[in-house]
Amino acid sequence: MVSRDSLTGFSLVTLLTDFGLSDAYAGVMKGVILSKAPDARLVDLTHDVPHQAVESGAFLLESAWRYFPPGTVHLTVVDPGVGTQRRRLALRTDSQYFVGPDNGVLSAALPDEARGARAIDGGYLAREVALPPGVEAILIENDSILRQPLSATFEGRDAFAPAAAHLAAGGALADLGPPATAVLALPAFRAPRAEDGSLAGRVVQVDHYGNLITDIRAVDLLASPLIEVAGRTLRLVRTYGASDRLCAIVSSSGRVEVALPKGSAADALGISRGTAVVAR
Amino acid sequence: MVSRDSLTGFSLVTLLTDFGLSDAYAGVMKGVILSKAPDARLVDLTHDVPHQAVESGAFLLESAWRYFPPGTVHLTVVDPGVGTQRRRLALRTDSQYFVGPDNGVLSAALPDEARGARAIDGGYLAREVALPPGVEAILIENDSILRQPLSATFEGRDAFAPAAAHLAAGGALADLGPPATAVLALPAFRAPRAEDGSLAGRVVQVDHYGNLITDIRAVDLLASPLIEVAGRTLRLVRTYGASDRLCAIVSSSGRVEVALPKGSAADALGISRGTAVVAR
Amino acid sequence: MVSRDSLTGFSLVTLLTDFGLSDAYAGVMKGVILSKAPDARLVDLTHDVPHQAVESGAFLLESAWRYFPPGTVHLTVVDPGVGTQRRRLALRTDSQYFVGPDNGVLSAALPDEARGARAIDGGYLAREVALPPGVEAILIENDSILRQPLSATFEGRDAFAPAAAHLAAGGALADLGPPATAVLALPAFRAPRAEDGSLAGRVVQVDHYGNLITDIRAVDLLASPLIEVAGRTLRLVRTYGASDRLCAIVSSSGRVEVALPKGSAADALGISRGTAVVAR
Repeated sequence: MVSRDSLTGFSLVTLLTDFGLSDAYAGVMKGVILSKAPDARLVDLTHDVPHQAVESGAFLLESAWRYFPPGTVHLTVVDPGVGTQRRRLALRTDSQYFVGPDNGVLSAALPDEARGARAIDGGYLAREVALPPGVEAILIENDSILRQPLSATFEGRDAFAPAAAHLAAGGALADLGPPATAVLALPAFRAPRAEDGSLAGRVVQVDHYGNLITDIRAVDLLASPLIEVAGRTLRLVRTYGASDRLCAIVSSSGRVEVALPKGSAADALGISRGTAVVAR
Repeated sequence: MVSRDSLTGFSLVTLLTDFGLSDAYAGVMKGVILSKAPDARLVDLTHDVPHQAVESGAFLLESAWRYFPPGTVHLTVVDPGVGTQRRRLALRTDSQYFVGPDNGVLSAALPDEARGARAIDGGYLAREVALPPGVEAILIENDSILRQPLSATFEGRDAFAPAAAHLAAGGALADLGPPATAVLALPAFRAPRAEDGSLAGRVVQVDHYGNLITDIRAVDLLASPLIEVAGRTLRLVRTYGASDRLCAIVSSSGRVEVALPKGSAADALGISRGTAVVAR
Repeated sequence: MVSRDSLTGFSLVTLLTDFGLSDAYAGVMKGVILSKAPDARLVDLTHDVPHQAVESGAFLLESAWRYFPPGTVHLTVVDPGVGTQRRRLALRTDSQYFVGPDNGVLSAALPDEARGARAIDGGYLAREVALPPGVEAILIENDSILRQPLSATFEGRDAFAPAAAHLAAGGALADLGPPATAVLALPAFRAPRAEDGSLAGRVVQVDHYGNLITDIRAVDLLASPLIEVAGRTLRLVRTYGASDRLCAIVSSSGRVEVALPKGSAADALGISRGTAVVAR
């Protein structure tokens, strides 16, 4: 386990939500954090997760957390169940903290083996998994840490931000509430292999450029793979600059991505998150 | 009055504008602030206030400022009158600072009593009010603090950011210019009560989710209230999770909000800011 | 040359990209920077440069950098050539650092004379120019500073952010790689004068308000100028408040701007970046 002593002397909190930027919701969470942890450094991952899209939130967190220093607290609020009985989690891995609702959005904190594999024709639905060795989980329930009265519509402000601030200020994980031994997790973002050896992939993210990022990992590809999407068959190129046409490329997160270098692959193909992509 | 000594040892500046994020305008204000107050910590509330919508800016500031620590400087620039004779204000309440144009956008710094009530059929138009006890106001006029030459199109950069930086760096309010005894303010965001006892509300903000936030405060509701909007009559639910249909709920700022939990109430009803909402 | 000793005691890094805010790409670059330069302060200029629009990126950087304190590192990634043989640059002027691809986006670091003039009917295309006195250039090639393996699709994360962090942490420019004596630069953003004395301008930026910002500098205008755009002839006004109609005004960056004070000039005229604007 990381101890606060091994950290770099400051505490970093990232924020990942579906709050958007046109209201002051994200700013209010920052005010709550800085009121309690004045030395915290805040970094926005994004606030533009599609509304209540737990899968997108989990994927974005997975693409980002490993680039942050040990001790970073990742505050992740994509929370369709706000105000209901769903649980609130704080997780500690060997190097970082993760705070958010127990709905699968924090899956990135768990190793792939603990999350299990996606079914060939399935999507990314959360299911309960046992907590693997090396990860601690706490339910955020301590009334002295929650803001009172707890809003039934904005637990990001009243529960998650105070919990993240507690950790960022050097507080103990155990102060937040009782431990949990199982949590909800999405299957690992890794396309399963079909009987014929192909990878049964899926678009998991459409990025700002209209690139279609899949769950097909480069490390799982056969030599000279062909990528099939929306009736097209594409070869892998190495750089966006190598093609003016629709192409497949290894994305910066090590996954196959379908791109149109001077345009939007999503617009050109008319497809979106969830569409099947096969690698042979 | 708060003294700088009572602060937490760092100075926090929030930014709230209608500048958007596609230009460098907000970034430039931050450069100006950090040139003058290198230790300031900056937090964006939002830069997506609808163009020149003073009422929206005031409402968002009101929803946010109380979550920030004492001594925070709130830099608020929604300024249709930039370059004209409208005055520039810096306000100090018992715990925080507010900097911006004298057009009502800083109304949140004043107690509701000082702002007065909205007329039953009226909107939120600024009017001159006397400065209440416990609030100091200064006109930002000191040439040694303004950037020279003062741009007639970007006083956020040349006047408001330098003034906010002056305060964030521990400078005295009185350095900024002469005192003011009256300021422009919007009526309190609180629906007036009609003769029949109902509350004559109004949509004051449409948020990122399409939720319609009204000026009807939960504390003013009768027991088992009915909310009427666009020909619908809704009951209050406690959480978004309690309904898949259009519903009324108490927002995180303690006001009645009309929501469609898995969609956008604004789109479903085809209504926007300013629409009447009645609570009985 | 600025030495680190002359700085204000903290290191500031600005970010300017076309990454958008809906993914975690900008956040990931911040994680990389803070992992290596924990004390760096980060300021977003914008992440909404139009896709791969090097000219827009260069113009926005030029409008912003001078408002930041000495020693600031400007990390600028608008990079259609990511993963190809295009070079990676770090520039040092007498007061600031600039890091990004060698495609013209860093033109703002060079004085106008070094960039040369735009042709009367030409646009802003990068061409090779000799490095002027007072500016140092280094090619970012040092493998010990680049993240390994270097992604062919996200050099912002693996090359430019680590280089910026190196500078922000007080590292020497020369550590990044070998010197360069010529770089790609866009012509100076300054409308050339035609034989009849008029200025042959061009819309170089459409801002958030729909204002059309041109490359016609106020200092080059004749007395009582007339501005011609899309068949209209406009006089200069001093403030947005002075007109309810389409008008010309001097923008906050000292250039002629065409504006519709309560609406969008871009929408009203149906024109965009690149459109001709003449000042007589």
